[in-house]
Amino acid sequence: MARSKRLMTKEASTEIEYETGGGVWQFPVDQPLGLDSGGELAPLEVAYKTYGKLNADRSNAVFICHALTGDQHVASTHPVTDKPGWWTRVVGPGLPLDPTRYFIICSNVLGGCMGTTGPASINPATGEVWGLNFPVITIGDMVRAQAMLVKALGIETLFAVVGTSMGGMQVLQWAADYPERMFSAICVAAAARHSAQNIAFHEVGRAAIMADPDWREGAYDRAGVRPEKGLAVARMAAHITYLSETALQRKFGRELQRDGLSWGFNADFQVESYLRHQGASFVDRFDANSYLYITRALDYFDLADSYGGVLAEAFIKARAVRFCVLSFSSDWLYPTAESRDVVRALNAAGCRASFAEITTDKGHDAIFLDEPALDSALRGFLAAAAERRGLA
Amino acid sequence: MARSKRLMTKEASTEIEYETGGGVWQFPVDQPLGLDSGGELAPLEVAYKTYGKLNADRSNAVFICHALTGDQHVASTHPVTDKPGWWTRVVGPGLPLDPTRYFIICSNVLGGCMGTTGPASINPATGEVWGLNFPVITIGDMVRAQAMLVKALGIETLFAVVGTSMGGMQVLQWAADYPERMFSAICVAAAARHSAQNIAFHEVGRAAIMADPDWREGAYDRAGVRPEKGLAVARMAAHITYLSETALQRKFGRELQRDGLSWGFNADFQVESYLRHQGASFVDRFDANSYLYITRALDYFDLADSYGGVLAEAFIKARAVRFCVLSFSSDWLYPTAESRDVVRALNAAGCRASFAEITTDKGHDAIFLDEPALDSALRGFLAAAAERRGLA
Repeated sequence: MARSKRLMTKEASTEIEYETGGGVWQFPVDQPLGLDSGGELAPLEVAYKTYGKLNADRSNAVFICHALTGDQHVASTHPVTDKPGWWTRVVGPGLPLDPTRYFIICSNVLGGCMGTTGPASINPATGEVWGLNFPVITIGDMVRAQAMLVKALGIETLFAVVGTSMGGMQVLQWAADYPERMFSAICVAAAARHSAQNIAFHEVGRAAIMADPDWREGAYDRAGVRPEKGLAVARMAAHITYLSETALQRKFGRELQRDGLSWGFNADFQVESYLRHQGASFVDRFDANSYLYITRALDYFDLADSYGGVLAEAFIKARAVRFCVLSFSSDWLYPTAESRDVVRALNAAGCRASFAEITTDKGHDAIFLDEPALDSALRGFLAAAAERRGLA
Repeated sequence: MARSKRLMTKEASTEIEYETGGGVWQFPVDQPLGLDSGGELAPLEVAYKTYGKLNADRSNAVFICHALTGDQHVASTHPVTDKPGWWTRVVGPGLPLDPTRYFIICSNVLGGCMGTTGPASINPATGEVWGLNFPVITIGDMVRAQAMLVKALGIETLFAVVGTSMGGMQVLQWAADYPERMFSAICVAAAARHSAQNIAFHEVGRAAIMADPDWREGAYDRAGVRPEKGLAVARMAAHITYLSETALQRKFGRELQRDGLSWGFNADFQVESYLRHQGASFVDRFDANSYLYITRALDYFDLADSYGGVLAEAFIKARAVRFCVLSFSSDWLYPTAESRDVVRALNAAGCRASFAEITTDKGHDAIFLDEPALDSALRGFLAAAAERRGLA
């Protein structure tokens, strides 16, 4: 399903052509996905997108891991929202992850709702939607499914595994589980484990979903309803954590929607209206049970846990991998201290790691925003790695 | 309704007697409460508690303003939860606010649900519960009701107005509206206005309540139901803001409830269980509509707004008042910067203000916790003020 795409570069209005592709990879029943919970999942479907072309020696593949509510549409129009891909600031011709140079792959995570097997898929044992009968999954399970896809696409070694937020956690998991299958790793605005505060915010979101009577213990599909109100509240709570206090203040302050207060409970302040919009638009593109399962996977994430609590042990076999760890100074969801812990462990394991804290007041959301320092950090690291890999 | 209370002092196990009193002050219909929204509220009832005895020249009265979910039971057993008062660490014999020295008054705020007129009261025009027909109120309205009570109790001038969090905002409002009726003011962990992030968190809470079908557009009382699930979610979200990330991590970290993960959606982590408990116990003692009205009053709060946006102007008439402003270094709900803004305005207005940022990692919740630096700051300021007031 490869097709060519024409994009205008910013600099010179020259059209640059590159191939896009993707689809849903269907693994047969005899190729199940092993799960950390002990069971297996089959058949497994993985929905993915590709940008650019794999080179002759298959050495230019980059795998991008998306965040909690992201999906495979990293640099192309989202089929549901009709909005641009979530990382068009970084992925595109002339940009750090350039599809005219690299073969870029992004797949919807296990448990997601954009085509990869998840709680909204059909349980082959019953012929009905999985719902809460779907097994609880982990970041490790997500990465295992990604590794199966990469192998199925005929790629032995990825040039880079890149991820932001939850995607960054997947990058660290990749380095622990498949270090021999990656040349470099970029982990942006993430952590090696979920903190108590991270878990607390997710628990609020899950409580909001489960409090919605339309959730029906997860069996809303059968009832023909959707717990939209609960999911919207979950999104609103989470969204606050993506923005810094400074960014919220600058963006909205106490600005009103209209002249004067309404003396009621409508959205008086712009920040209220903004949050309500975030909640309302989210439910159009996301599934409530997926939200439960993916937040659960995040809360369960503690990479060191499988290594006797010593994070460095997770990276012992990844000494040949070149790491880049980036954080944002105003990110209070996954603060710089968490990235420093990762870098410390990489150093202790004898890995090559470059680290930068990008000074910004935009919070976690800086991932998606105009942040030239992020671009240049990515560009610099990738250029050096590409040269080493013989891609320059 | 005064009665005597025997308390053991920490130091010497000596019993110290002081009087407690209180009740519900019923203002007749011809003494309505004027509201910032333009209307009037009558009849007004104000529920209050007193500790200690008013001295002969009525100069030892201290008014305590409580926080969002607090009430008048500042130093005595809560009638619903049967738990100790919310500030027994500060109010009591031998403590900074000593009822053997001061006549301490605390009243439930306007809009509250512990006896003062609020949305759960009867609307005299209809004979039914107000619900959403209750007028939207402000911090200014709350303070106006407090001032009516203080006057009714026969007190011309308060020795001190003391408040924490939302109570601290009321202290600032007191200083703006009734400077001639107070000798000193103590504002702990508060701000002169609600920030975008503050509003955002409250909007999540309100959205959670309103998403609960048992809320019934505020008319749940008539239907004989209560939006408990929504209110619990609101409390859970708010509760996170009361604790610092460090405190959450120290208190809970990633500790599990049981040995091993449940691989399900029960509370696996202690922090989940804690938050669920906070939500569940809150609904037993609080009213959902009160939560809506009081959070709205907080969001509307911007003291400078009535003074052309210049906060110092609010304090121009308060030059005779002695101010003490205290903040907690790890409080991210009302960060120190907000208190500094208050102090800067007080200085600009020519007021006497002492300020201290108390170094603690306990977050906003430090108000209620073992924080000796808070005690000594209060003790020091009150001692100096009492001497000046001739109470020493």
